[in-house]
Amino acid sequence: MGQLSHHEIVQLLLSLAVLLGAARILGELARRLRQPAVIGELLAGVMLGPTVLGKLWPAANATLFPTEGAVSVAMHGFTVIAITLFLLVAGMEVDLSTIWKRRIAAFSVGIGGMVVPFVMAFAVAWFAPSLLGAKSESPTLVFALFIGTAMAISALPVVAKMLMDLQLFRTDVGMTIIAAAVFNDLAGWMIFAVVLAMIGQASSSGLEVWQSILVTVLFVVFMLTIARWLLDRVLPWIQAHLSWPGGMLGFSLVMGILCAAFTEWIGVHAVFGAFMFGVALGDSRHLRASTRETIDQFISFIFAPLFFASVGLRVNFFEHFDLGLVLIVLALATVGKLLGCVLSARMARFPRREAWAIGFGMNARGAMEIILGLLAFEAGIIDARLFVALVIMALVTSMTSGSLMQWVMGRTEQVRFWAFAGPKLFVPRLDSTDRFDAIRELARVVGGESRIDAIAGSAVSRERLLGSGIGGGVAVPHARLEDITEPIVAVGISRVGIDFDARDGHPARIIILLVTPASDARVQLQLLASVAAVCRDAQTVERLALVGSWTEFLAVLNVDAAAARST
Amino acid sequence: MGQLSHHEIVQLLLSLAVLLGAARILGELARRLRQPAVIGELLAGVMLGPTVLGKLWPAANATLFPTEGAVSVAMHGFTVIAITLFLLVAGMEVDLSTIWKRRIAAFSVGIGGMVVPFVMAFAVAWFAPSLLGAKSESPTLVFALFIGTAMAISALPVVAKMLMDLQLFRTDVGMTIIAAAVFNDLAGWMIFAVVLAMIGQASSSGLEVWQSILVTVLFVVFMLTIARWLLDRVLPWIQAHLSWPGGMLGFSLVMGILCAAFTEWIGVHAVFGAFMFGVALGDSRHLRASTRETIDQFISFIFAPLFFASVGLRVNFFEHFDLGLVLIVLALATVGKLLGCVLSARMARFPRREAWAIGFGMNARGAMEIILGLLAFEAGIIDARLFVALVIMALVTSMTSGSLMQWVMGRTEQVRFWAFAGPKLFVPRLDSTDRFDAIRELARVVGGESRIDAIAGSAVSRERLLGSGIGGGVAVPHARLEDITEPIVAVGISRVGIDFDARDGHPARIIILLVTPASDARVQLQLLASVAAVCRDAQTVERLALVGSWTEFLAVLNVDAAAARST
Repeated sequence: MGQLSHHEIVQLLLSLAVLLGAARILGELARRLRQPAVIGELLAGVMLGPTVLGKLWPAANATLFPTEGAVSVAMHGFTVIAITLFLLVAGMEVDLSTIWKRRIAAFSVGIGGMVVPFVMAFAVAWFAPSLLGAKSESPTLVFALFIGTAMAISALPVVAKMLMDLQLFRTDVGMTIIAAAVFNDLAGWMIFAVVLAMIGQASSSGLEVWQSILVTVLFVVFMLTIARWLLDRVLPWIQAHLSWPGGMLGFSLVMGILCAAFTEWIGVHAVFGAFMFGVALGDSRHLRASTRETIDQFISFIFAPLFFASVGLRVNFFEHFDLGLVLIVLALATVGKLLGCVLSARMARFPRREAWAIGFGMNARGAMEIILGLLAFEAGIIDARLFVALVIMALVTSMTSGSLMQWVMGRTEQVRFWAFAGPKLFVPRLDSTDRFDAIRELARVVGGESRIDAIAGSAVSRERLLGSGIGGGVAVPHARLEDITEPIVAVGISRVGIDFDARDGHPARIIILLVTPASDARVQLQLLASVAAVCRDAQTVERLALVGSWTEFLAVLNVDAAAARST
Repeated sequence: MGQLSHHEIVQLLLSLAVLLGAARILGELARRLRQPAVIGELLAGVMLGPTVLGKLWPAANATLFPTEGAVSVAMHGFTVIAITLFLLVAGMEVDLSTIWKRRIAAFSVGIGGMVVPFVMAFAVAWFAPSLLGAKSESPTLVFALFIGTAMAISALPVVAKMLMDLQLFRTDVGMTIIAAAVFNDLAGWMIFAVVLAMIGQASSSGLEVWQSILVTVLFVVFMLTIARWLLDRVLPWIQAHLSWPGGMLGFSLVMGILCAAFTEWIGVHAVFGAFMFGVALGDSRHLRASTRETIDQFISFIFAPLFFASVGLRVNFFEHFDLGLVLIVLALATVGKLLGCVLSARMARFPRREAWAIGFGMNARGAMEIILGLLAFEAGIIDARLFVALVIMALVTSMTSGSLMQWVMGRTEQVRFWAFAGPKLFVPRLDSTDRFDAIRELARVVGGESRIDAIAGSAVSRERLLGSGIGGGVAVPHARLEDITEPIVAVGISRVGIDFDARDGHPARIIILLVTPASDARVQLQLLASVAAVCRDAQTVERLALVGSWTEFLAVLNVDAAAARST
């Protein structure tokens, strides 16, 4: 059997499409609920796997995701490549210079935030392995080392996303968290590589345990020194002489997969090699943002969802759910991490509130914990019950850490004007040619005939005082109402342009009427800032002025805003 | 056996990396020799497969690319997905509105260029199947239909690339060729789908032959009408409400793979469904260029090389090479195509020279022929000898058609100033602060001490007549020499800027000395145009002025030029 049959090809295509489709849909849903996408992706696998679909409709589950035979082998091949490439991208996000710039705070929080949970968890696992459901056959030292590592890591991607959402990324607290998380990631994977080498699955290389560990250490040193130096010289050559971006894409993937093959061969799993190559590659100043992005987009949106969904397929989460174990793991992880981070942040002279924010931020385990857990499960270090508990711990810490940080820092999320607008508040073609008429036209869609005068009256009197044209073809008239608690935003487009007395003299083509509660003085400024941020780009305004529906309007905002962020 | 073992994972990663790496390297080499990348990619497979490596070092070939067992199955899974996604992208390149705009010329050339080779080849295959090495067990009708189709198609991607290289893409001839090739592609795949349905590999659906054909036709009609209409409505919604670009990426791939699963199920191969979905998707005006590009980059540079290299692994090209058969196939393909295209182009009132250019352009078979041949080989319609002959025919027609077109149109390829420069002609830091000194400094690197006076003299006297600053921080002094036959270009960078009397008053930071043969008056203008085209973008000039080596200089040109083309 060296080829897939016609029937198996149908099966493989169908299962890939269903798995990827479900993972993307639930991932988007999670994002909508302001949760990391990985939560939805994993849930997709749980739904399609033995936990739900396997119970409700075993035949469908068995046809789509067989556990034996050629389709299963091919799917396993895909997930191996998916996880390898995902770790390549994760490695690329590790910015060594960020750690170096903030080395004192990063090392103190990084080390404190690792050592305390590591020691606590190691001690529990060493003295009471049965409490954590250790398998009797695996050596206690290996088990305890793994549990220590699993509790000590943080999830860099989740943390970074969270900080950006809370607009804390560029602050002192934010950069410290990032640097410490990067340090944690790096140190955590190295310890885990040693753990894997210790259980001696190094069958194909035939190396002794100590040899595996030695080679691993040499590999890390090589990647962080010589390989980085070489990459800095090779990348300009590739960009100069090979096709763009094919040369860089091909080079990155081929080298990443080769490093993965090497570490798998020495017995410390493929993902470690890909991760270390990613670190060396991502650090080169010659890596262009657009290369990073193309690799990142394809892998984050295609390979990562496939992988995390496939994790959900692996075990029956219902059957192996053990509430006691989940609570113990959750407590051990959270208490150790918080204690370590808060204490070391206080020692690094962060104020108390910020120290707690750092603790909550670092507590997110996210994708990394799930990967670590799966590898340990596959290597036989832990059983299905503990695997399920670790996955749940990763999800719970990731889901809570954002709101806890927000609460302790008293931060509010960014206000976006389109969150208060909608299809019924959108006028694709304003009839008016005069600014006061235009305000009335928009006031009508906000308040109907009954309240048009109140709204338009307020806006018009302000408009008379000071024209609300902010230039660049945009005007933002404003009304205040006593009896509303949430802002209402109406958007109108004028094909001919209406003079709103802007400084630059341009007539307004996009008119955004902000109706805000009289009780909240701040929200108007926030809305105005959000309009200004979007309309800074002339091309975006041009595109917005040509749309025909609210959906298209949103599409432009969504796409252009994403493009603006990435440059 | 439902999982890959540790050892098999090492093997899979290694073979993927080696295959992709070799395909990319030889693909780049082919590009360097101004040949389609697919030629190098296929050659990579031939080198690593039974033809070369299997002969020289059978053990390595067997370890890397086993034909039995789990690794082989997983690799087959990868190539199935790779070819499916490649056809998705190929479909996206089919622009129905281009055909419609030039419908008269396109249909006449498209139909003439298909019918004549189809009928000729069909006749030969029907009356003398043994001449083409038909397998006795396959029905002659199916065989003759396949041969007809195989001779009648054209390779859209190769043709488009060639036209761009020759700067013919936007001309009348160019657009007619594109439109006709699109029409050929579409019609060819439909006939082939019918051929596949006829041999009744439709095992999993259990449909009769006529039912398969009916469902195929309905599927095509559905994709070109209702699906296109639906996509036009769904895409803005996805862009408005899902993450960017993940929503579009995920949607395109999931739907493409689902359509592939459907057509594989009805018995006409997965690639057909992906292709048709690509056609419907690529036609939507809501598909953003950046989505198209992200999908395209990853697939063209990763999946396509993997697939074409894997084709080379399939058979022993040396053993199954049959010179007689190759020549017959080549003659049949070329004569039929040229006859059909030239006659119908003349009928559509193209001048003789342009009619021949159309004929030569349409003669390129490229990737499509190879895919068609492989599918027919896998389905048992043709044997290994004919498969090898078809592949060679595809390569030969693709390699020759560019130069034949160039010859018949008397076109020269674009002149690029950096083709005549090099590391020894590059001065990263000019010492001069005066324009005449700077010219001498560059003249020295061109001619050495012996000829510095001749070069500098010519350039300086021209410079005195008219300052060579072209604005934007760039200057292009120029010298003519009697005794050279090729231009020489020296590039210097001034950190402080040197006044070259530009209209905009900006000092020049990049000084490009053009030394051209006195006998060729035109080349100076071409070089100047090439400088101007690159330096139009202020950001590019800024980047160029900061590089420290020729390699970095080339890297900026290569990357920025590619970025400029894509917007």
